[in-house]
Amino acid sequence: MLVARLDDVRWLCGFSGSTGWAVFDKSSRRGLLMVDGRYVERATEEIARAGTPFDVVVATAPDDHDSALCGFVDGRTLGIDPTTVTAARMTALRARCDVAEEAAPFDELRRTKDESEIACMERAASIADAALQSVVADGLAGRSEREIRNRLEHLMREHGADEPAFPTIVASGANGARPHHEPGDRVVCDGDAVVIDLGARVAGYRSDMTRTVLVGRVAREVGAMFETVRAAQENGLSSVRSGVAGRDVDAACRSVFRSSSVEHEFVHGTGHGVGLAIHEFPVLGPRCTTALLGSEVVTVEPGLYRGGVAGVRIEDLVVVGEHGCRPLTHSPKELTCPPSARTI
Amino acid sequence: MLVARLDDVRWLCGFSGSTGWAVFDKSSRRGLLMVDGRYVERATEEIARAGTPFDVVVATAPDDHDSALCGFVDGRTLGIDPTTVTAARMTALRARCDVAEEAAPFDELRRTKDESEIACMERAASIADAALQSVVADGLAGRSEREIRNRLEHLMREHGADEPAFPTIVASGANGARPHHEPGDRVVCDGDAVVIDLGARVAGYRSDMTRTVLVGRVAREVGAMFETVRAAQENGLSSVRSGVAGRDVDAACRSVFRSSSVEHEFVHGTGHGVGLAIHEFPVLGPRCTTALLGSEVVTVEPGLYRGGVAGVRIEDLVVVGEHGCRPLTHSPKELTCPPSARTI
Repeated sequence: MLVARLDDVRWLCGFSGSTGWAVFDKSSRRGLLMVDGRYVERATEEIARAGTPFDVVVATAPDDHDSALCGFVDGRTLGIDPTTVTAARMTALRARCDVAEEAAPFDELRRTKDESEIACMERAASIADAALQSVVADGLAGRSEREIRNRLEHLMREHGADEPAFPTIVASGANGARPHHEPGDRVVCDGDAVVIDLGARVAGYRSDMTRTVLVGRVAREVGAMFETVRAAQENGLSSVRSGVAGRDVDAACRSVFRSSSVEHEFVHGTGHGVGLAIHEFPVLGPRCTTALLGSEVVTVEPGLYRGGVAGVRIEDLVVVGEHGCRPLTHSPKELTCPPSARTI
Repeated sequence: MLVARLDDVRWLCGFSGSTGWAVFDKSSRRGLLMVDGRYVERATEEIARAGTPFDVVVATAPDDHDSALCGFVDGRTLGIDPTTVTAARMTALRARCDVAEEAAPFDELRRTKDESEIACMERAASIADAALQSVVADGLAGRSEREIRNRLEHLMREHGADEPAFPTIVASGANGARPHHEPGDRVVCDGDAVVIDLGARVAGYRSDMTRTVLVGRVAREVGAMFETVRAAQENGLSSVRSGVAGRDVDAACRSVFRSSSVEHEFVHGTGHGVGLAIHEFPVLGPRCTTALLGSEVVTVEPGLYRGGVAGVRIEDLVVVGEHGCRPLTHSPKELTCPPSARTI
């Protein structure tokens, strides 16, 4: 089987470089890792450290790797997941090997995390908690979204993150109405709700959390949005346990919005798996019939987005258990800041 | 024509979100931009700002977008570049439209940069120069690779970068022998060559540069590596002008290494195009017969990697001109630091 997605390669054999792919033989449990000249040393060391049965093949031309691949396949059939390779690559490999299209098992295999994976994610979540706490304690008013973003990402690294898990979102005031706003020059002021979505990466594993910080006196309308999201998120969290379908968690959040007649302002799904990738299977949306598994790590992140007014989102990272879930995110749900910049 | 790569979408219509795709009609010069609910506002604003003739189609299910796509294609033939979509997506679209495989023109179209693109890249390059200068002035000895990386990325943002152009590399001592080392806990000490590869992103456009900083008294062997790389890089730079094939620039660097019998330690190509993506067409390697174009922006970055000893790489970002090239990177080639940490 061809392993074309980098996160799957990392999960399977420990290699953490930015390009590379692998082929794995399910019967002999052996494989080849294909890297270019930049990654020889790292690949060899990481494979030795992970103790995985992979041989490293180094090449500069794609053809060298394809020759090694055909030698490994040796007349047997090569399984390829058509969602993980380009159409051009599929055509090229079909010309050299007998190819069978088959769904890769990695999305499913990577769902449940073992203790060491959860430990990395717990550490990543606590780093994000600490960075947020420190930035909120310093006050948001008078600072631009970019400044806040820069400080959060710097603090996460100071606290030991390899890197941010994804580009941090800081969306203040009316910018909050965009779920994926890119932090800009807008300066946070009195009355803002500030949506802050951040995560850290530790040994490859990511965390993901969101809080909406209320600055000074917010309008009653925004306060009501906040309370509705908080109630939706609590309802969502309380529905999480192994065996529950993703769409039921989504419905638990959505029902709170429906009873406040604001369901149309909830423009995304309720959550997703997290691990080596920031978005892993499953997606907890209205169409998700997949049942949650024990030791799966997912987000619960309902939000409301009101154009020209504000956005509110609250997100926790949780480990699915038999009777409920264990949060890895520990920041208080309600965070507030004074209305104007501190003068020191 | 389907436009599946995000950088091509951004180049074509100005949309900067993290997911989305477009379809463009070359005869009517009109197109559709397909985004999900998170990006409605941003897409609409960015398209208006860029003044490009795209209509935004919002959908949560892939099916909604595919229906809009089929409506737009309206019985004509949809061009798809098979290197830009997955095999699964190609199969799905073939089932709904008449598809013709054709090479997308974007790699070629994006090669030459206009003045505003070069201005962004020049600003990005000067931000990286400033961050490096300030970190070197503070001294590297006594700091870990991670600390140095964290400070560089923080400074680039303080100086106005949207984000780092790619994960910054700081590889000290023997770690330098890995071209793509991930910064770790190793503390820089007397005698180290420290490879620092960094870039900034401004309005989507990226910069890319590398310097190798010599700390205290380095071994004669390392000093010799440094001089060889500096000579190779100068030779490479002096060969750059429009009309020259990429492989000739590579050969200009490689010939210096060959005459020092260290060509086998140069384990990557000499450079690559840079723009919205950090690696753009063409790749300036031994197989590159493509002739450089005026106003193309490329890197020239030869290096030597000696296992167990050190690495040295020197990289400039340059604009290709008719009679030579104009560097966007302005840091001195030789940077040195004192052997031990300053005490304040």
